[in-house]
Order: sequence, then C-alpha cells, then structure tokens
Amino acid sequence: MSAKSPFPLHLPPRLVETAVAAALAEDLGSEGDITTDAIVPAGATGEAAIVARQDGVIAGLDLAEAAFKALDPKISFVRVVQDGGEVASGGTIATVTGKTRALLTAERTALNFLGRLSGIATLTAAYVKAVEGTAARISCTRKTTPGLRAFEKYAVRAGGGVNHRFGLYDAVLVKDNHIAAAGGLAQALERLSARSGHLVKIEVEVDTLDQLKQALGFPIDAVLLDNMDVEMLKHAVKLVAGRVTTEASGGVSLETVREIASSGVDLISVGALTHSPRNLDSSLEWKA
Amino acid sequence: MSAKSPFPLHLPPRLVETAVAAALAEDLGSEGDITTDAIVPAGATGEAAIVARQDGVIAGLDLAEAAFKALDPKISFVRVVQDGGEVASGGTIATVTGKTRALLTAERTALNFLGRLSGIATLTAAYVKAVEGTAARISCTRKTTPGLRAFEKYAVRAGGGVNHRFGLYDAVLVKDNHIAAAGGLAQALERLSARSGHLVKIEVEVDTLDQLKQALGFPIDAVLLDNMDVEMLKHAVKLVAGRVTTEASGGVSLETVREIASSGVDLISVGALTHSPRNLDSSLEWKA
Amino acid sequence: MSAKSPFPLHLPPRLVETAVAAALAEDLGSEGDITTDAIVPAGATGEAAIVARQDGVIAGLDLAEAAFKALDPKISFVRVVQDGGEVASGGTIATVTGKTRALLTAERTALNFLGRLSGIATLTAAYVKAVEGTAARISCTRKTTPGLRAFEKYAVRAGGGVNHRFGLYDAVLVKDNHIAAAGGLAQALERLSARSGHLVKIEVEVDTLDQLKQALGFPIDAVLLDNMDVEMLKHAVKLVAGRVTTEASGGVSLETVREIASSGVDLISVGALTHSPRNLDSSLEWKA
Amino acid sequence: MSAKSPFPLHLPPRLVETAVAAALAEDLGSEGDITTDAIVPAGATGEAAIVARQDGVIAGLDLAEAAFKALDPKISFVRVVQDGGEVASGGTIATVTGKTRALLTAERTALNFLGRLSGIATLTAAYVKAVEGTAARISCTRKTTPGLRAFEKYAVRAGGGVNHRFGLYDAVLVKDNHIAAAGGLAQALERLSARSGHLVKIEVEVDTLDQLKQALGFPIDAVLLDNMDVEMLKHAVKLVAGRVTTEASGGVSLETVREIASSGVDLISVGALTHSPRNLDSSLEWKA
Amino acid sequence: MSAKSPFPLHLPPRLVETAVAAALAEDLGSEGDITTDAIVPAGATGEAAIVARQDGVIAGLDLAEAAFKALDPKISFVRVVQDGGEVASGGTIATVTGKTRALLTAERTALNFLGRLSGIATLTAAYVKAVEGTAARISCTRKTTPGLRAFEKYAVRAGGGVNHRFGLYDAVLVKDNHIAAAGGLAQALERLSARSGHLVKIEVEVDTLDQLKQALGFPIDAVLLDNMDVEMLKHAVKLVAGRVTTEASGGVSLETVREIASSGVDLISVGALTHSPRNLDSSLEWKA
Amino acid sequence: MSAKSPFPLHLPPRLVETAVAAALAEDLGSEGDITTDAIVPAGATGEAAIVARQDGVIAGLDLAEAAFKALDPKISFVRVVQDGGEVASGGTIATVTGKTRALLTAERTALNFLGRLSGIATLTAAYVKAVEGTAARISCTRKTTPGLRAFEKYAVRAGGGVNHRFGLYDAVLVKDNHIAAAGGLAQALERLSARSGHLVKIEVEVDTLDQLKQALGFPIDAVLLDNMDVEMLKHAVKLVAGRVTTEASGGVSLETVREIASSGVDLISVGALTHSPRNLDSSLEWKA
Repeated sequence: MSAKSPFPLHLPPRLVETAVAAALAEDLGSEGDITTDAIVPAGATGEAAIVARQDGVIAGLDLAEAAFKALDPKISFVRVVQDGGEVASGGTIATVTGKTRALLTAERTALNFLGRLSGIATLTAAYVKAVEGTAARISCTRKTTPGLRAFEKYAVRAGGGVNHRFGLYDAVLVKDNHIAAAGGLAQALERLSARSGHLVKIEVEVDTLDQLKQALGFPIDAVLLDNMDVEMLKHAVKLVAGRVTTEASGGVSLETVREIASSGVDLISVGALTHSPRNLDSSLEWKA
Repeated sequence: MSAKSPFPLHLPPRLVETAVAAALAEDLGSEGDITTDAIVPAGATGEAAIVARQDGVIAGLDLAEAAFKALDPKISFVRVVQDGGEVASGGTIATVTGKTRALLTAERTALNFLGRLSGIATLTAAYVKAVEGTAARISCTRKTTPGLRAFEKYAVRAGGGVNHRFGLYDAVLVKDNHIAAAGGLAQALERLSARSGHLVKIEVEVDTLDQLKQALGFPIDAVLLDNMDVEMLKHAVKLVAGRVTTEASGGVSLETVREIASSGVDLISVGALTHSPRNLDSSLEWKA
Repeated sequence: MSAKSPFPLHLPPRLVETAVAAALAEDLGSEGDITTDAIVPAGATGEAAIVARQDGVIAGLDLAEAAFKALDPKISFVRVVQDGGEVASGGTIATVTGKTRALLTAERTALNFLGRLSGIATLTAAYVKAVEGTAARISCTRKTTPGLRAFEKYAVRAGGGVNHRFGLYDAVLVKDNHIAAAGGLAQALERLSARSGHLVKIEVEVDTLDQLKQALGFPIDAVLLDNMDVEMLKHAVKLVAGRVTTEASGGVSLETVREIASSGVDLISVGALTHSPRNLDSSLEWKA
Repeated sequence: MSAKSPFPLHLPPRLVETAVAAALAEDLGSEGDITTDAIVPAGATGEAAIVARQDGVIAGLDLAEAAFKALDPKISFVRVVQDGGEVASGGTIATVTGKTRALLTAERTALNFLGRLSGIATLTAAYVKAVEGTAARISCTRKTTPGLRAFEKYAVRAGGGVNHRFGLYDAVLVKDNHIAAAGGLAQALERLSARSGHLVKIEVEVDTLDQLKQALGFPIDAVLLDNMDVEMLKHAVKLVAGRVTTEASGGVSLETVREIASSGVDLISVGALTHSPRNLDSSLEWKA
Repeated sequence: MSAKSPFPLHLPPRLVETAVAAALAEDLGSEGDITTDAIVPAGATGEAAIVARQDGVIAGLDLAEAAFKALDPKISFVRVVQDGGEVASGGTIATVTGKTRALLTAERTALNFLGRLSGIATLTAAYVKAVEGTAARISCTRKTTPGLRAFEKYAVRAGGGVNHRFGLYDAVLVKDNHIAAAGGLAQALERLSARSGHLVKIEVEVDTLDQLKQALGFPIDAVLLDNMDVEMLKHAVKLVAGRVTTEASGGVSLETVREIASSGVDLISVGALTHSPRNLDSSLEWKA
Repeated sequence: MSAKSPFPLHLPPRLVETAVAAALAEDLGSEGDITTDAIVPAGATGEAAIVARQDGVIAGLDLAEAAFKALDPKISFVRVVQDGGEVASGGTIATVTGKTRALLTAERTALNFLGRLSGIATLTAAYVKAVEGTAARISCTRKTTPGLRAFEKYAVRAGGGVNHRFGLYDAVLVKDNHIAAAGGLAQALERLSARSGHLVKIEVEVDTLDQLKQALGFPIDAVLLDNMDVEMLKHAVKLVAGRVTTEASGGVSLETVREIASSGVDLISVGALTHSPRNLDSSLEWKA
C-alpha cells in the first residue's frame, strides 16, 4: 500500500522553509506565543512524541520537523516512520527533543501540516489498494488547497498515487469550453500546435465515443473520459487501443473505483484526494 | 441556520488580493494557461454560472470574485446568494460575465476557495443547527489549514459559529504542559499576570473537577473542559456558576454535540470544522 | 526601576532578522558601503564597545547584535547590560569583536535600533518610577512608529511598563465615534456580542461619570477614563468598585502622572512613550 | 520658514503605498478592526478633519491620504495645508470624507505617519529659522528610524533643510576608523580613487586643523568638522577658503546653532532632527 | 519572418507588473530621479516617440508600456508596431504622451526591456528565416538571463521560434550524467516511469547512433541529437523514422543552421538566442 | 588587463542569496528537477569542473558558488581563478564537489550567472586594453539587464572598468530634455542647487562647444560630451582645462575607442558592455 518510489521521499527545503515560516507567522503574529513565553523559562528542555490516533499513511514529516527547527535549530527530530510509510493507531510517528518553548509553540503548526498531508496520503493509499491488481493508477487533480498544491501533490505520491499536471502551465488539457470557443476540435488543436513546445503533452476531454473517435484523429497524448459508465469506458479503451493514455474521471468513490479500473483505463483521477480528505488524527505527547 | 451578524459578511480586500494572487501564481507558473491562451481569442467573451451540486451554506464569494477580476478587471460577478446564505443543490450561487479567457483560467482557483470555505460554513451550520435551542455556541479551533486561517475562521462565522483565538498571540490558553513546565498552576498564573496586558483574556484547560476548583481560585476568564463526559460537564457548569466562560472540547461529533450542549456549557469547540470539512461541490456552467 | 518579568527579555528571532535585513538594505542599497569596502581590507578584524553617553534603561540588544551578525556571522557580541537593565553615562553596554568591515558597516543600523528602543525603555522607566508605591501600572498606546510596533511595545516592557492592545485586531476599544455610528452604547455593545469571540476583551472609552454608569451596565472588561481630572478619576474609581479595569489617559506627563495615579486607577496610558522619546545617546568606540 | 523647493513636495507613490500597506497590516493583523467592523455598518459615511493641536510645519500628507484611500479608494482627502506649509494650533490640516469604517480604521496609521514627519519638519524649520541670515544650511544625518529613512529625509526638506547622503552607498564619508584601518589618510584616499566612480563625492571627517590641512592635500569634495568649537571652526573655514564644502557637527542644539553658523560653515548637520523629534500633536475630529 | 501565432502576442499582466516594479525600484532607489524631480515641474506634459535605430523584430512592448504607466497611469502609449512585427531603422515603434517626469524617468527602464527582448526576437527571426522551407523549427534553451526567462521565451516566440521546456520542472531531459548516475539508460528510464505523471514528456540526449538505437527501445517522446555532424543527423533522422521528435543542438550558427536543417530534424535549439543577442538599438525622441 | 582594485572582489552576500534563490525558483518551479530527482539517488556524490571554452576574464563566482550551496550547503567550491582574473580556453575556472543532485540541478543557474557576468568582464577588459597607455578609463552606463544591475556593474569593475552612477538616485545627469523642460540651463541648475544635497555630483550633457562653454559657467562636476568627433573632443578637453571630469559617449566601438581616448577625455562610457556582451562559454565537466 505504500509508495513505489525507488528513493525516500523528501520535499524541496526551499518550499518547506517558506511555507513553515508563513504558517508560524500566521500563528504567532507580532506578539508571539504569549502563553508559553510568560510561563515557560527560556532554558527549559523537554521531550515529546508525535503519536498517531488512527491507522494511516504518513506524509509531511519535513514540514513538521522544519516547524520545530524554525524555533530551535538544535532540536532533535527522530523519525520512526518515513513519509509513505504506514502507522497504526497509537504508534509513534516521530520523537522531538529540545527547548520546551519551541516544542509547545510549534506543536500546532507541525501537526496541522502533518495531519492534512497524512490525511491525503492515507486516502490515496486506500484508493490505490482498492485497484490493486488492475492496470489503473490513481491520480490527483488541480482541486487542491490554494497555497499547498506542491505539498498535496507530494502527499498523493506518498500514498502511492501519481500526479496529474501541476497547473495550467505544464500540460494542455482541452475541455468542451475550449473547443466551443475555438469553433471545433480541429481548430483548437491546430492553434495548439502552432504554439506549443515539443515537450508539452496534450490531453483532450471527451464525453462520448464519437468525440473520442474525432479526437484520436489528431496528434494527442491522452484522453480524459469524463463521466462515462463502465461499459462505455470499456468501449473507449478498446477504441483507443493503446495509442494514447486513457484517464477516467467523474463519479469515482472507494466503492466504485475498482469497477472503473476493470474497464482497463490507465488512470483514474480523484478530486477528493486533495479537496476532501479527513486529517490524520495525531497528537504531541509529553514524555519529560 | 445562517449567520447572525447584523451586517453582510465581507473579507478584508487586502487579504483577499494577496491570497488570490498567490493561488493564481501557483496555478499559472511562468507560462500561464497554455491551453486557453493558445485556443481562445483574447477578445472573446462569455457568461457562466457557478452552480451548487449539493445543499449547503456559502462562504468565500469575495475570493471567487477576486480570482476572476484579477484576470479581467471588468468582469461582472453577480451574487445570487450571499456569504452565510443557504443554497440548494442545482441552485445558482453567482453568475460571471466577461472575457472567456479570464473565466476559463480563473475557474479552478475560484472554485477551490469557494468549495473549501463553503464546506466549512456548511459543516458549521450543521453543528449550529444541532444545538439549536440550547445555550451553547459552536466554536472553531487553531486546527486550520496553514496559510488560510483568517479565511477559515471567517467561514466558521458565515456558518453561524464563533471564533476561538486567532493564534498564539491574541489570548492566553494554559494547558497541562504549561502548568507542568511552570511547576504548578499558581506559578503559571502569577507569571502570566506579571506580563500580560490588561486586554488579554486567560483561559485554562482542566481535565478534572479538582483542577477546575483550583483554577477558579485565580483571576481567569474561561475554562476549557477537555474530554469530560456529560455528567462531569454538568457538575463543572454548576461549579463555575457563571463566573467564567465554559468551553467543552473532545469527542464532539454531529451525533454527540447536542447532548454535550445539554450540559449547559457556553461553548463547544470542534476542530473538524476546519481540519476535515468536505468541499462543497460546485461547478462553473457555461451559458454562452 | 527595571522590568519585573521573571525571565530575561528577548525578541522573537524571526522579527529581528526581518527588521534588521530591511534596515541594512535601506542603508546599503545596491552598492553597499562604498567607503569601507574601498578602504578596509576584507580580512581586517577589530574590537569596539557600545558606550552609553547618558544614563538610561537598555532595550534592543537583540537587534544590535543581529545587525553585526548579518554582516559577519562569526562576530562576538558580549552584553555587559541586559535588556531592561540600567546603564550609567560612560558605561559600556556591549562589546563587539570581528571583521572590521562588518563593525563599521553595521554600526549605524545597530545604534539606530538601540537608541530608539532604549529611549523608549528609559522614558517608560521614568514614568514607572514616578508612580512607584501606587497601584497604577504604566501602559503604552498604538501611537507607535509605523513598522516598529512589536519592538516598541517590547521596549515599554523592558522599561517596566505593560502593553495595551497590539492593534485593532486583538481587543475591542469602543470610542465615542463608534457609539455615535451605532446609534447608542447599547446597540454598539449588542452588535459586538453577536460577533466577538469569547477570548476578546472589551474596553469602553467614557468622558463623563454618566457615561461610565451607563457603560457599567454592560458586560465589559475595562473602561478608558479619558481626559478626566483627578477628582473625577477618584469618583470613577469608586463607581467602578473593582468590577472592571480602570485606565486613565490624557494630559499625562512626568509632572502629573503621580497625582493621576493617586486616584486609584489601575492603569495610566502614555502615548509619548513611543511617539516622542528621546533617543538614548550611545556610540561605538574602537579599542583595537 | 517653509521649504524653498520650487515645486510642491510629493513623495514617490510606490514608496508611500508600500509603507502604508505595511503599517495597516501591522495594525489590522488577520482579524482586522474588530471594533469598527462589528459596530459600524459597511455603508455608513462620515466627514472628519485632521486638526493640529500645536503650531508646526506639516509633512507626510501623502502617507496620511494613502492610509485612508487604502481602505476606501473613493475617499475625498482635501488638503488645507501643503507639505512644507505652516499650521497653527487648532488649525485644520486636511478634511477627509468617505466610508466611516475607513475613517475610523485608518485614523491611527494616518496620524502616526503625519505626526512623526511633521515633528521632523517642525524641528528642522526651527533650526533653519535659528540660522536665518547666515550662510549655513541645516542638514540631517543617517540617524533615522529604521525603515523610514526616505520619508524622514523628505520631512527634513519639507522643513527647509537639506539632505546628507541617503546611505552608505551614495557618497563616501571617511572617518577616523577608516583612516586607521587603511594605515593613513593617503592610503585611504588612494584606495578610494582606484574604485570610486566619477560621480561619487568624497567627504573626510577631521577633528583638528592639522588633519584638515592634510585632508585638503587630496582631491576631496567636503570636510566634516567634528566637535570643533566656534573659534576652531572659523579657522577651519578660513583654511578651506571655499575649495571644498564645510560641514560642522557635534554639540549642535537650538541654543548653539546660530553661533556655530556664524563661523561661516556651509552646512550644520543635526542628528536630533530625525532621531529625537517630538511628534506634532494632531487629532481626527468628527464633523458628521 | 514574423511570428505565426493566430492571436496577437501579450505577456501576462501580473508578470509584467512585478518585473517593471522591480526594475524601476532598481533605478530609482529611495531618492527617486533626483535630476528630473528637481528640474521638471510636476504638471509638465510631453510627447515622445520610441524610434528604432536598426532593422529588427519587436518584442516587449507590454513591458515598455507598463514602465511608463507605473509612473503616470494616464499616459497614452500608442503602438505603431506589434510584438512580433518588423521595424526598419528609423521607424517609429510607439509613441508616448503624458507627464514629462514619467516619460523621462521611465525611459531607460522601458528601453532596457524593449532592447533586450527585441534583440532576442530579431536574432530568432534571422534563424527562422535561414531555415525557411525546411521542416525544422527554431527553439530556445534554458540559457536565459536569470529572472527574465518567461520574457525571453516569449521573445523567442515573437521572433517565430518555439519554446523548449521552461525549467527543470515541466519536462524530463535525460543527459549522460543522469544515465551514468543511474547506472545505465534502462535503469534511468525505469525510475522515471515509476514517478512521472502521465502528462510529462521525456527527452533523451544521445551522442551516437548506438545510443540513439538504445534510447528508441524505451517509451520516450524526443531525442536530443547533440553535436552530431549533418551526415550523422541524417542517419539519426532515418533511424527515428518519425517515432519521436528529433532535436539537433551544438555548433549551430547562422552560417550552419540551414545545413543542419537539411538533415530533416524537427527542431534546432540555439542557446545564443537568449544568452548572447545584441540589444535592438532604439531611442526615445522628443516631439514636444 | 585585469582589475586594479587593491582587494579581492566580492559581491555582497545578501544580494547574491536573493538573486540566486530567485533564479533557482524560476528553474525549479513547484515540482523541482523532475529528471534528477527521479533518476539520481539522494545520497550520491560527485565532482565536476567548470571549464572555460574560450579565453576571457571571470566574474560572478560568488553567484555560481551560491547556486550550488543553496542546494547542498556542504558543497566544496574551489576557485582556480578569482573574479577579475583571466582564463584561457580549456582552463578550469573552479571545481565543485558534493551531492550529485545539487551539482546537476544547480548547473544551469550557476553557468547562466557566470556566463553573463564573465562576458561583461571580458568585453570590458578588451576596451580597457584598447585604451592602455592613455588617460581614459572605461565606464558602463545604465543600459543594464533589469534586475541584474548591481551584478553587471560589478562585472565591469572585474574587467578593469569603472562605474557610472548606479541609478537615477545617486547622481545628477542633466540632459537636453531636462534643460528644455526647465526653460534653459541656468534655470535647470538653479533648481538643482535648491534641492540637491552637498554630496551629490552634477554632470551635464552637451552636444556642442557652445553648450559646453555655457555649462562651465555653473558649479558642475562633470560634462558628458555626446557624439562628438575626435577633433571636437580635443577642443572640449582643452576648453575644460581640468576643471571638471570629461566623459565621451556615442559611437564607441573596439575599433574607435583608442582614437577617442587620444582626445584626452577622462572617461569613455560604453553601453554595449552591459547591453550586448557575448556570454563567456563554459561548461560543467564531470570527473567522477
């Protein structure tokens, strides 16, 4: 159920530092942690564990660690689980040792990142497990939390999923409205070829088999088979015959995903992975 | 079920503009919307409606509007529902008229904001409705999405809830670990009084009635009754006797919240409002 | 006369680094220190002392240290006095040893911060001393230098004063104009209660005893007794009878503050602490 | 007593907007003006006057206007006095008409800027008046408030003074420590000439007439005569004989400045103009 | 020779505004244009023309216009040529009418952008013309000026060229060092397929025909034929037989490009387009 | 031919870090280096050399080093040549040892900076060599790449040239249009003297000897002799007679510069140094 990447997963430090600094600033304002600063001596040190309160797949440890280190660079953050690894309810995810002030002040920021990303990884892993044995891979969409897309896409990978395009800039996805505005699929794709670089892939959304046939007449890389039932998906896969990547979307849930996968599509994209995961519940428990 | 504020709800423009600019930058990168720019003529105009695909309470229209206006300052954005208002599945939330390119390019950013904030407002409203007729108000926590706290707190208000402190900076909340680090509640509260300004409120978390009695011996403003069952909550409310605000937390769900409210507490805080709402499903439907 | 905080005073590193970087950028532009860079070899090292040229209370050493360290991370900055401590004219505040270029280039930035904050601490300490033995504490206002509020509020604490609210966001202060715009005190306070979180304190400004009586009929936390003479203040304190915090403002000077304090008010707020302190004069004297 | 510039004084809009946005953010945090937003209806409008509470010279109206306009772009801000102009106690500086919320929320930010800059302009004008009829001009130094240098230098001009260099980057000022580090004045100035552009001026600080004679043997543009008494200043001016600009500094006060000017120096620089002005007292008075 | 895009070329306003603001800040510092502000009355207006001093293809008019408008929002900027259009030496590119101060102060910033981008467009157009009639398109590389990549890629399109990938993030390009570090081409491409999204294209650099054959055994989208002579290129094109895109690079100049194109490659990439163009010479000529 | 500065040349770390972070962000986007991250193990290390592919003078090593260190703080970057030093084609400029991922990912950013700045230094050195033995120094202009001015001015110094003003803010340069707008040279210079600080130099552009004579009647520091032929330049130098700095501009090329220098002018300014240098070609060659 865990991720298949050949290397341990890590987030780019520059993205992590920027996001953590912004999150801490949001929580600390100009005054800082007025409870902790008034009550806890600057020199006091302590040890705590981040403990899972439910089963799941972990993602976001780099962000959690950075939150503590931003307040005490000498903190020791020891990972018991790695990003992409599973944890059982009650299990320790990581231990943190250092200045008590830093532990108390960064706690919520660290857990807010970890909880959301692990929630996404856990939900992704459930979908991946549901299609095990089929050819289908599970993909995210652009329905991500504003400001967190790179992290949420990473959490999908940690859960064993694959990433769709990152934004409007790195691949072409032609939808009905584009075709209508261009006056037809042919015109749309001609305009694209006049402008796109040779390293940009082109995917076209189709709702019917007729549209699919038309689209396959053009040099495209993938088709998005939107809101088709399984029978139609199977027809579509047969029609495509391996010439381009096939992606199914619409009406996907943990209950329906395996049947959709049985159609033979290459990819099933699930918006809920990033727009409606449940946070993975965890807490910071003090040891000393 | 809707919000009780005497005035229409609006987000501060400066926060909206900054967040929308960052979200658009995340989606557009350096290249921009390479599909739309290649296919749709710059001068083309269109009209579309944001339509709800489920019942709910709306929040975040300022952000949605700003996303479209950032790309076409002359766009017309007409609200059918206001923030804090209810919408039924299939109902129109707002209509947008202007440059087709702006409509297509800003669509996902606008819906990502609107979906998340409306999801929070809808979930909050469900909790508020569940305790209708009791004295309890529904409150959020600091378990918010990093970078979006001000917006998510606003969505809670739109759903009829009230806000807890915004961060570590604007109120004191003394927890067990603080008390332990200070060597006792008395010392913790003495240190606080030596430093806190006269306009800062102090809340103390207690797990038992003995702790509660001890806390009430100090000049505090509120108590957080953590993980108590309803019987203990009733005892606690009786003990407090209106001297300070009482807040219940822990084990709160839509199933349990009414019983918790029946204890007579002033406030019930629910982390899930902001950390695990389901996005409100909506889509941009083209009219012309 | 010095500050009463149980712990040594320190500014949050992230605020210090940002402010120092901006101040150095302002002084260095794109060209840098064209005098020092042309004249002093990169490898030269030196030692200097920051020496007070007048008696006072020190605040801002974190900023001074950060200014030097921004240009030479290995600089040694040894504090002879701590923030909140007193220095006599001619006394050494701190010594600095490291790259000569860094010492010369950062000198003015370090002293500009230290002089302003120590000026505020010194003035605050004079007010605090003037009311010694009374129940009154000395408080700042929002009349601070744009961009430096967190530092100036800190300097007030270093001088033994307490902080009023940090901004318009962390507490409610209802003034005449608010009441007029709402159509009366009752309406104003009702609107507030519909929206304010349970951890937000409410203070109301009153100019007369009648207004005071009316205000006390509402659930408020503090009253601002504006521009009252000492007799009226005494009446007001008697009327309040300890139910809410009493704050006097208007017409406060080092000559009048003790008499105002004798009225029994809890707090005297002084705008001049932050809007019109005299810089504490100091200089960087070379030793080698 | 007012400024001599042939054109009305204005600050660069881009600097004004950035500084005002930062100052408002500091005052509003994430929550905004929780008093005004809860009490005053969004649609309410009002009119107010900025009234001086003491005599003085005005500076900073662009900043005050921008603070109001940032919150209500349609506000009408009418200047009765211009920057560099005089106002008498009780006189109106400007009137502001627009959204009541914007007026109340921006009030403190507007007055904080206006008070500080007008305080500088007023103090500068007092020095300028004190030396009227002599050849000496009054100049500021780099002893400015971190973050506000461009504005404070502007306020000095509004008061009739002239600006010294803006930072370490736009002119060379060789001090004792530079000469010591270089191993002598000759070496210092040779190193400079190897690197300085042809549009960079060079000033040398001297403490004695011997140093002055030595300095005049090099191609320099100005001498800073530091801490010399009036007799020595006269000798120095005679020695220089118009070849370079002469600047006196040290021990300058409103009591001593005219005598110093009588020495015939071209320039007298006064650190206190920007490091220790008293705010010009003003208030926002409501008309309707 | 001009660009083939079906729509007029425009740069995204948000990128233009940010870049122009930074460029103006670099030129204006804290003091602003001290020459113009002192000499030219604020109200004076004028008219000027941007005139080409050599033949070329224009790019960057949005940036030039934005530079003037940043200083005078009401300026009239009338384009005689559009981006991608040709101009002859002595021809007018655009006229500008508005505040004299804005014209004089923004002149250099406007021309710096316009000169560089038009230089790139002109050089690109020369390469495009040189291969006219062949199947080869001219492409840029990542050898761009730090900070200006999006603009320089745009200028290449304005000159009739196409864009290679925008950065390391939007397409895969496997070079020798990657293959060596992975322990062989097979391993490198397996690792890629485990991680890449379905909308990411993969190009592999090859130096020999043997490498080419090996690469073609994997599911790739393009091959970069590096530093091959024309004979080898022809062999390579024949080997590829239209299965993937062929790109030639290395040793490309205006003298050699047509011969390279004759090999039948799809694409010729030229680093010099963006790293070593000559600025297109132009000047701002005053009319009134 | 190399630079004459008495000290090794270094760029201010704060400018370097900011520019390098921006350049890396431009190249990495949100996804990072998707080729290297997928193929190269995180722990792999390697060694490479930056090798020149043509003769030239080096500038920008601080930027190149910072690019690698931003991705691997422990990288070892050993300089074989220093900024301002010469390298021959095939010679090693520096060696880099550390994480393979950091080497591959930062390569292009490092070389883009190094190539451009070394190109400027090399071109400057060629002009400096061409006027060797004359009194003329070679100067840059404000025709720099937006965003890179401080670095490009530094590269000119590395090539043995001197810097003109850095922006519109640090010196006055009066051109024809200024004089026209002011209604004559006298008025322009009077207005300047009313406003300029005593450390600001004034240069006046003249096209004829009559203009030159008129300008010399005012207290100015330099004259810009624009587009004069050598005979006229000689007359101008004689007329000036050492009273102010003389600068020639217009029609300067490597072919003409020596003859222009023979006129006796102090300075020859060359826009092409920064607007149209050819990148110095170099590459990162792997050793292990």
